[in-house]
Amino acid sequence: MALKFYLAGPEVFLPNARDMLDAKAAMTRAYGFEPICPGDVTIEPAPTLHEFGLKISAVDEDMMNRADGVIANLTPFRGIAADVGTAFELGYMCAQGKIVSAYTNVAENHFQRTSGFYNGEVRETADGRKRGPDGMSLENFDMIENLMLHGGVERRGGFIATHAASPEALYTDLTAFEACLKWVASRHG
Amino acid sequence: MALKFYLAGPEVFLPNARDMLDAKAAMTRAYGFEPICPGDVTIEPAPTLHEFGLKISAVDEDMMNRADGVIANLTPFRGIAADVGTAFELGYMCAQGKIVSAYTNVAENHFQRTSGFYNGEVRETADGRKRGPDGMSLENFDMIENLMLHGGVERRGGFIATHAASPEALYTDLTAFEACLKWVASRHG
Repeated sequence: MALKFYLAGPEVFLPNARDMLDAKAAMTRAYGFEPICPGDVTIEPAPTLHEFGLKISAVDEDMMNRADGVIANLTPFRGIAADVGTAFELGYMCAQGKIVSAYTNVAENHFQRTSGFYNGEVRETADGRKRGPDGMSLENFDMIENLMLHGGVERRGGFIATHAASPEALYTDLTAFEACLKWVASRHG
Repeated sequence: MALKFYLAGPEVFLPNARDMLDAKAAMTRAYGFEPICPGDVTIEPAPTLHEFGLKISAVDEDMMNRADGVIANLTPFRGIAADVGTAFELGYMCAQGKIVSAYTNVAENHFQRTSGFYNGEVRETADGRKRGPDGMSLENFDMIENLMLHGGVERRGGFIATHAASPEALYTDLTAFEACLKWVASRHG
């Protein structure tokens, strides 16, 4: 039986969401695995938008429960950080002890992106922490994301891929995604 | 034995992080529960920043594994969305079937904040989705955050509190946090 991988990421929000999910699914199959994508199942109507959202949550969690692992797209989304839905899903899969891998299409690491959020106005304070003008400290751990995400993957022996995609291909470039598939195939193929 | 709650949120980044964590811990004890806070344990030094980050990840996961539940502060952090570390932790606790609750100190819901990200330039396209000028769709489910987070809590019978804190008290106002404690006490006290 082929291992099943949940393909987490902000692709579901793209104008060409279906095409992107299909492309990722096809690539996953080409490496011998079974893809499970949010958006694959038709959700039946609900009386309110809120209840419809709850149904999607139930379907996506069920998909994760059935999956053997996750490949999470942590490319920054609407800001400097990963999509919080994807962050939730990565935590969910880490807690279940599944096979975890993650990637980003942005070369700047978490510290560099957060520094950018403060336009570089980052100083080291007496406690040895780097802080922005608002006094908030910045994580400076040479990681692609907040330490819970990056650490959660790395500490489990998972794989993290980084690829500097061109700005217009930020959410469509599959180089780093494929690097995750290659890693999974080499370990669990 | 008092139930143990992991107090997740971006407080660890505040200039007065220790004071805020102590205040939340004291309030948690006042409701009869044992608080477990990231930042409570002194992490021993590591040869590199990266390895130090991994140690914090291990300590925080261990805290979550020992906790009976989580109270997650989803107040938007450095942008329109919750701190991704907190999102990861909420997913982690949902997957473990723990007692889950979450709050935000911002009254605007997820759809309103995302609309704000696009300066209100949101249109409904032929497929019935609301989309920004970049073509990305917006979740419109009357939820405080991405449906995986809000749905993950609500579908488990968890509690979600919203309080419109004043801007200067965005990360220090504990009204909504206390509402979560009151709910936990009424259900699990």
